[in-house]
Amino acid sequence: MSKRILIMIGPDFEDLELFYPLYRLKEAGFEITITAPWKGKLSGKHGYTVEVDKSFDEINPDEYDALAIPGGRGPERIRVFTREQAIRIVQHFMDNGKPVAAICHGPQLLISAECVKGYRLTSYPGISDDIKAAGGIWVNEPVVVDRNLVTARIPDDLPYWMKEFIRLLLS
Amino acid sequence: MSKRILIMIGPDFEDLELFYPLYRLKEAGFEITITAPWKGKLSGKHGYTVEVDKSFDEINPDEYDALAIPGGRGPERIRVFTREQAIRIVQHFMDNGKPVAAICHGPQLLISAECVKGYRLTSYPGISDDIKAAGGIWVNEPVVVDRNLVTARIPDDLPYWMKEFIRLLLS
Repeated sequence: MSKRILIMIGPDFEDLELFYPLYRLKEAGFEITITAPWKGKLSGKHGYTVEVDKSFDEINPDEYDALAIPGGRGPERIRVFTREQAIRIVQHFMDNGKPVAAICHGPQLLISAECVKGYRLTSYPGISDDIKAAGGIWVNEPVVVDRNLVTARIPDDLPYWMKEFIRLLLS
Repeated sequence: MSKRILIMIGPDFEDLELFYPLYRLKEAGFEITITAPWKGKLSGKHGYTVEVDKSFDEINPDEYDALAIPGGRGPERIRVFTREQAIRIVQHFMDNGKPVAAICHGPQLLISAECVKGYRLTSYPGISDDIKAAGGIWVNEPVVVDRNLVTARIPDDLPYWMKEFIRLLLS
């Protein structure tokens, strides 16, 4: 059976950071579910819209094999609207060592879920201090893999991010 | 040696239709050159910008193995600004049977280059009449492969389009 991957977004997500993994993981044959604070259409920073499959409170994380968290303004806005529901989902994947991919501002949700301590990771450089303050080991590289966690910095890192995430999913 | 692929864009290109193939083909290890009517930064419909590697008049098509043409408003605007230079490039790939991938409004440049006659292909549905008028066999499918030509309709077709294009490049 093909692996089921959850993509977690919030309002004003970074458009390429949603659509590149969405299309790339579909191309690789994975089954994708998009989850957000609420159902219906959600818009990215650049005006692309996407249909949300399930709201956070409808998600049973046991049913998914991996999690991807795009960046943009979504992660911070998730913290404002539905923080506890998002944390419950992120912690499930991190606690169980399931593959997690986060890019740009996506690692903000790893901070909220108290999951970065002792991990080597990257992010949008503007939040590197937050990651260090939370106990993470921040490095400035296009992609960083530490155990189950695959992180990247910006849209131009997308090809490296997905290459490593897919490698982890197929390992 | 890795294959060299030319991506041809114009002003107001469809952002995902440039960046998905750009990142996807990089991920697969190909060498990419972005060409446009002029050098410098070019913006897509949704506001993403990209650095153009070479203007059309700097391109020697003999140096490339394949061509990809994203859609958006770019192809029509190329017709206005630098029609003859673009036609020269497109015809080189089609005349020599080198792989060509076009999506959305990208096939407008195949019409200008008088290359669609007898080909089975797809495009953005709004230009299907133009393709039929030019002698093409238009079909409404996510991706269509006919000999060296791989076509698709809209951004949601990107995973199918790139899967077939990469298959052709590696065959």
